[in-house]
Amino acid sequence: MASTAAPAIQDSYPDAFAHCFGCGRLNPQGHQLKSRLVGDEVVAEFTAPDKYTGGVPGKAYGGLVASLLDCHGTASAAGYAARADGVEIGGSKPLSRFVTASLKVDFKAPTPVGTPLLVRARLRSLEGRKAWIDMTLSAGDSVCATGEMLAIRLPD
Amino acid sequence: MASTAAPAIQDSYPDAFAHCFGCGRLNPQGHQLKSRLVGDEVVAEFTAPDKYTGGVPGKAYGGLVASLLDCHGTASAAGYAARADGVEIGGSKPLSRFVTASLKVDFKAPTPVGTPLLVRARLRSLEGRKAWIDMTLSAGDSVCATGEMLAIRLPD
Repeated sequence: MASTAAPAIQDSYPDAFAHCFGCGRLNPQGHQLKSRLVGDEVVAEFTAPDKYTGGVPGKAYGGLVASLLDCHGTASAAGYAARADGVEIGGSKPLSRFVTASLKVDFKAPTPVGTPLLVRARLRSLEGRKAWIDMTLSAGDSVCATGEMLAIRLPD
Repeated sequence: MASTAAPAIQDSYPDAFAHCFGCGRLNPQGHQLKSRLVGDEVVAEFTAPDKYTGGVPGKAYGGLVASLLDCHGTASAAGYAARADGVEIGGSKPLSRFVTASLKVDFKAPTPVGTPLLVRARLRSLEGRKAWIDMTLSAGDSVCATGEMLAIRLPD
């Protein structure tokens, strides 16, 4: 399970970049996803409200799955970049922001709403402004989706 | 621009599959995306409310872009399959439903909120239960994102 002891990467985004519906602390109507660097992984937990159903009630719509992977992936890139730069997550210095260049989502099994989901990320590579991130989204023992992202670092 | 004369593909989904937050007519809290087969293209228009901002206000969060492409892609697959089967969209027979196996989104430029967006799809191939769909999402003359989907037909 995700550790809540580690600070959320999104909570160290600069205010100007903290309005995201998926993960911005300054968007009160959004999902407010919190991604935390724990060991070599970045993890986040999320339980989808019922309204985010897909075509079939009880299962999340594909867009929510993609949203969680998208926000978690860019947060993970920011977290790994901070570690590489020696910048403390949760410290006084805001983190560099990454944006998605490309996201591929493979849907493996229906994703339940109303059930805790775990999103996990690992860094494949970080070279210059480019970060490649591999992700899974799971419910209990079931991997519901995998994700692969290329994220690009914005100038500070 | 999208023709509103053609019936929306999503309005011909069976009731049991019409609850999607992105495009279900039976989800009053959702986006209610409407995709229409016009000539050889499937088109949809959508204007994102301000709350769906990304990190930077004024630009949509990536998850919304992925959501629109995901719902539009599976609708397009259903529309092209109906045409191939000689089933009338908007007729008395519900359409077969497709689900996403894989979706790749390439983000080309920021997607504005509060501005009409046009989502366009073309069929690459339809073989057995598999449909490959290519998409663009644009605001005016600017292509904001492209999408590539493999959708799988569910048994009727």
